[in-house]
Amino acid sequence: MPVRTPQQQRSRATQARLLEATVECLVERGWSGTTTTVVAARAGVSRGAQLHHYPTKASLVMAAVGHLAERRAEEIRTEAALLPAGTQRLDRLIDMLAAAFTGPLFVAALELWVAARTDAELRAALVPLEAKVGREMHRLTVDLLGADERTPGVREAVQATLDLLRGLGVANLLSDDSHRRTALLAAWKRQLATVLASGR
Amino acid sequence: MPVRTPQQQRSRATQARLLEATVECLVERGWSGTTTTVVAARAGVSRGAQLHHYPTKASLVMAAVGHLAERRAEEIRTEAALLPAGTQRLDRLIDMLAAAFTGPLFVAALELWVAARTDAELRAALVPLEAKVGREMHRLTVDLLGADERTPGVREAVQATLDLLRGLGVANLLSDDSHRRTALLAAWKRQLATVLASGR
Repeated sequence: MPVRTPQQQRSRATQARLLEATVECLVERGWSGTTTTVVAARAGVSRGAQLHHYPTKASLVMAAVGHLAERRAEEIRTEAALLPAGTQRLDRLIDMLAAAFTGPLFVAALELWVAARTDAELRAALVPLEAKVGREMHRLTVDLLGADERTPGVREAVQATLDLLRGLGVANLLSDDSHRRTALLAAWKRQLATVLASGR
Repeated sequence: MPVRTPQQQRSRATQARLLEATVECLVERGWSGTTTTVVAARAGVSRGAQLHHYPTKASLVMAAVGHLAERRAEEIRTEAALLPAGTQRLDRLIDMLAAAFTGPLFVAALELWVAARTDAELRAALVPLEAKVGREMHRLTVDLLGADERTPGVREAVQATLDLLRGLGVANLLSDDSHRRTALLAAWKRQLATVLASGR
């Protein structure tokens, strides 16, 4: 870890608080209810410090999505490292990913995607960031599943898993869909295991 | 068809214009940019007539979602009736459904789902409506695929197909995802065909 001055450490802590507060604010109030003023107040950061680190709402939310996607990926890696090998590993991994797609970061990201649809500036910034986040999520999933993408159908099955989880995340937005999701994913895990095993 | 007076016919035509304009407005401007004034102007309907038929924004968008979900289902049924029987029928049906999940009605509905997440009144109205629309879409898909839900795994496979398509619809929001979607769905169709055939 690089050596940081106390000032740099304070700056990073301030940034982290602002980014966490941004996601909380998007989850609670949505895109239209999220303002830099509200975020600064929630983070307990002065307006001046907020403007210094993230001068615009767009810069704040972009940084928040990037930061939290990284943190989420790290959490998934850490949790996955604790899973025992064996037949239940795939099931547990899918459950972990499903939790990520129904959690606060997914909800915050969805707020941004929908807002960016009708906001050209936000969209221009978000599209490359989301492409990167999407590629990294795909790579992470392939790694965790130990999937061999050279086997026909495996790449598509991993992609379908993530797209299915995105769809399930949206289905869970307005009401608790966990009962239906659990039954559906139980069936999908069996199919996915079959596809992944086909090249082994 | 019931006999209608000219006045009733005019009313229905006015309502249909308002509902179409509502969806167009949601697609172009999003939830926050959609107002009853803008919708009335776009539909070429007087403010008084708009207020008479749909006094609030919420009543307008609810009616629009219900009306257009029905129209969409009818279109899918009509198109599906023209498909030849045989091995390509399933593929064509999935393509039709994928088109529905990337089209204007899906985008308009997504605007509402996300807005309803942080708007208690809208949410209370939307949740039962969406549950009904979802059940009808599931039923329609089962019928069109000729799926036998008594066969183990079939019900979950049909649900997973619709959830996957919802996820693919979101993936297509900000940029054209059709290339990736086509490859992914080609693999999905083969898997779905296997599951559906397992009980036959």
